[in-house]
Amino acid sequence: MKPVKVGLLGLGTVGTGVVRIVEGHQHDLMSQSGSPIEIVKILVQDKNKARNISVSSDMLTENPWDVIENPEIDVIVEVMGGIELTKQLMLGALERGKHIVTANKDLMALHSPEILAKAAEKGCDVFYEASVAGGIPIIRTLIEGFSSDRITKIMGIVNGTTNYILAKMSKEGAAYADVLKEAQELGYAEADPTSDVEGLDAARKMTILGTLGFHANVALADVEVKGISGVTKEDIAYGKRLGYEVKLLGIAERQDEHISISVQPTMVKTSHPLASVNGVFNAVYVHGEAVGETMFYGPGAGEMPTATSVVADLVAVVRNLNLGVNGRRGFIPYKEKKLKTDEQIASKNFILLHVADKAGVLSQITQVFAEHGVSLESVLQHPNATNPLAEIIIVTHDANKAAMKKVLKQFEAMDVVHAIKSVYRVEG
Amino acid sequence: MKPVKVGLLGLGTVGTGVVRIVEGHQHDLMSQSGSPIEIVKILVQDKNKARNISVSSDMLTENPWDVIENPEIDVIVEVMGGIELTKQLMLGALERGKHIVTANKDLMALHSPEILAKAAEKGCDVFYEASVAGGIPIIRTLIEGFSSDRITKIMGIVNGTTNYILAKMSKEGAAYADVLKEAQELGYAEADPTSDVEGLDAARKMTILGTLGFHANVALADVEVKGISGVTKEDIAYGKRLGYEVKLLGIAERQDEHISISVQPTMVKTSHPLASVNGVFNAVYVHGEAVGETMFYGPGAGEMPTATSVVADLVAVVRNLNLGVNGRRGFIPYKEKKLKTDEQIASKNFILLHVADKAGVLSQITQVFAEHGVSLESVLQHPNATNPLAEIIIVTHDANKAAMKKVLKQFEAMDVVHAIKSVYRVEG
Repeated sequence: MKPVKVGLLGLGTVGTGVVRIVEGHQHDLMSQSGSPIEIVKILVQDKNKARNISVSSDMLTENPWDVIENPEIDVIVEVMGGIELTKQLMLGALERGKHIVTANKDLMALHSPEILAKAAEKGCDVFYEASVAGGIPIIRTLIEGFSSDRITKIMGIVNGTTNYILAKMSKEGAAYADVLKEAQELGYAEADPTSDVEGLDAARKMTILGTLGFHANVALADVEVKGISGVTKEDIAYGKRLGYEVKLLGIAERQDEHISISVQPTMVKTSHPLASVNGVFNAVYVHGEAVGETMFYGPGAGEMPTATSVVADLVAVVRNLNLGVNGRRGFIPYKEKKLKTDEQIASKNFILLHVADKAGVLSQITQVFAEHGVSLESVLQHPNATNPLAEIIIVTHDANKAAMKKVLKQFEAMDVVHAIKSVYRVEG
Repeated sequence: MKPVKVGLLGLGTVGTGVVRIVEGHQHDLMSQSGSPIEIVKILVQDKNKARNISVSSDMLTENPWDVIENPEIDVIVEVMGGIELTKQLMLGALERGKHIVTANKDLMALHSPEILAKAAEKGCDVFYEASVAGGIPIIRTLIEGFSSDRITKIMGIVNGTTNYILAKMSKEGAAYADVLKEAQELGYAEADPTSDVEGLDAARKMTILGTLGFHANVALADVEVKGISGVTKEDIAYGKRLGYEVKLLGIAERQDEHISISVQPTMVKTSHPLASVNGVFNAVYVHGEAVGETMFYGPGAGEMPTATSVVADLVAVVRNLNLGVNGRRGFIPYKEKKLKTDEQIASKNFILLHVADKAGVLSQITQVFAEHGVSLESVLQHPNATNPLAEIIIVTHDANKAAMKKVLKQFEAMDVVHAIKSVYRVEG
């Protein structure tokens, strides 16, 4: 049987895992896909670098176009990362009729319309299961498993680094800076952690999930992003007291035809299944009109979990090759994107205020909420031991974002409000 | 565009949900599948029965062969249940080139080899996502999402009735019989609850999951089954004291090429994600060599969740129709089934003994474990307030089943052992 030939771009963590699975599971992959799968060319940065996997040096190249232009290659597996060059390589591969499996969330979040259009034009597959939530097959689940339903909400813990940091802050009562430093030493956080801790990585993944869930082309710029660098141990402690864990959630919501997508640290009720997702695990909660509540949980990163998703996509490409249907089972958004206005975005909110410790203040505060039609679920006031002021924690009922903005603006102008210490969205 | 015509067998809970989704989501279904989908004939038990959905009486028939033999019908959706007649109807439909979507776990657990062989012969699709775990797309996940991996373990809470009963016993400290009676009154348990509470329903689902996970034809007879009717509130209380929740788990395991499948009440460590799955929710935990730990959670039954899975399968059939690839993407086990022997099945165990309350007994008991090579994780002894005897709770390390059988047999013959009150598998 003629083998399907694969060009691999990148032999880092995930690329190594891909080689291991393709070589180690050869018989199973053939039984399931219908053809032997053979990696014939691998792009690396340095051909002479020592590696913890043995690959023939003939296969290695430092020039990506050696892979893209190689006429015997049927499928490109892209696990090199990067955006601009990688996009040119992907378009070049499609131009030559090669199918693509990619783990590149940045590329897909920014350029999927262009890449998928080129794939459709050329009759090629582009699959990207590994781009979101590592080993969890959430992209297939949204495209195939819930094809019959109308998704109303997707909430994801889709960044392992921030989940590790927040879970550790919660468990140990530790400060953000200390835990970040430790995570960097352990290799769970990058030397420059900005993309993770400021929510950009999660925002890219939510762009992809939002597009799939709502069948409309969500752009990265549509995602409102806030990271975890402002989360204090005090916030976490106050959250716990009221029954919440702080998690960095990506939230994509739809009501009628209007959608909103955001990433922010969120107070999640401890009884919600997302609240107990700890360590570097990822989880995606999906609510559909018909199916109701579901959740998908697993390793969000790592060599073998991510490679599992990459190679499952490779199997899908090979199955399609053997059926002659490549490029005809792709995901194509068919709805116009309509974003919610601030008036249409509603959530519960957790607000921590420092206020003057004198009579009548609480009444003034609650009056502001009332003026803007925001009703309150709970109010907790207690004197702060170290300051001549009081702390007030307020949890609102569902309130629209426009009203909340007005409330906070009014607080800023009030003398009795010394500081708006924290504002969190509340879920669960 | 020519609509795809569907014959529906059954208009009970799930059938009603299927009609609602197919009619309500018409535009979305067409956008995703490529064709309009039209239900043209519905089998019912009584044409004149009042229904909480409006369907044209012309569509209804009381004769299943009216549907099967109708030449304009492309796809049969089977949500009538039953085994022998239903099997004849399915084979008759395939003989006529009709594709099948079924929610029937009993049929698929007992007769899937015959039905899938006929489907392959006739170039027809047979999809059955709704047969296991209602709205959770676990069948797709095993076939597509983990096609690249080698599954080592599947643990499922796949029966909502027993999960409801056990969770309620745990929460309220209530006795089995009382909670069962209440569940029956609320409609969560059948008047004859045998199939649920004795684990037969779960065993059928595990037959299907085991077949999919291990690529070998698992038969219902291969599943060792024990239900929850012997679970006492004392067991649950003792379990809690040691950090466990009792759950009815289906467990399918593989080591090298040998597999075992069982259903039994299991002590699940409270930190394990399955331990906190409550109410009528289902969850399936999947461990793969490459991916590691994953879990899929959602509603296990009910009109709309189950119908979501049925209609997702229908969309898949229609997509295949438009690609001309029906019957070519089915799941075909390619491995020989090899069952583990008792020597190859290992687990931790929880054992509650009533023993004579006198010196030296604990030493005699622990000696028996040692003789058979079973090492112990924890031992808890305390006098029973109401009896002139002591209770001993032992949790073993991983021990093979053959050794455990010998240990228990020896206890039965010992005078100082008054009763082996309970034996549970331990997970997590």
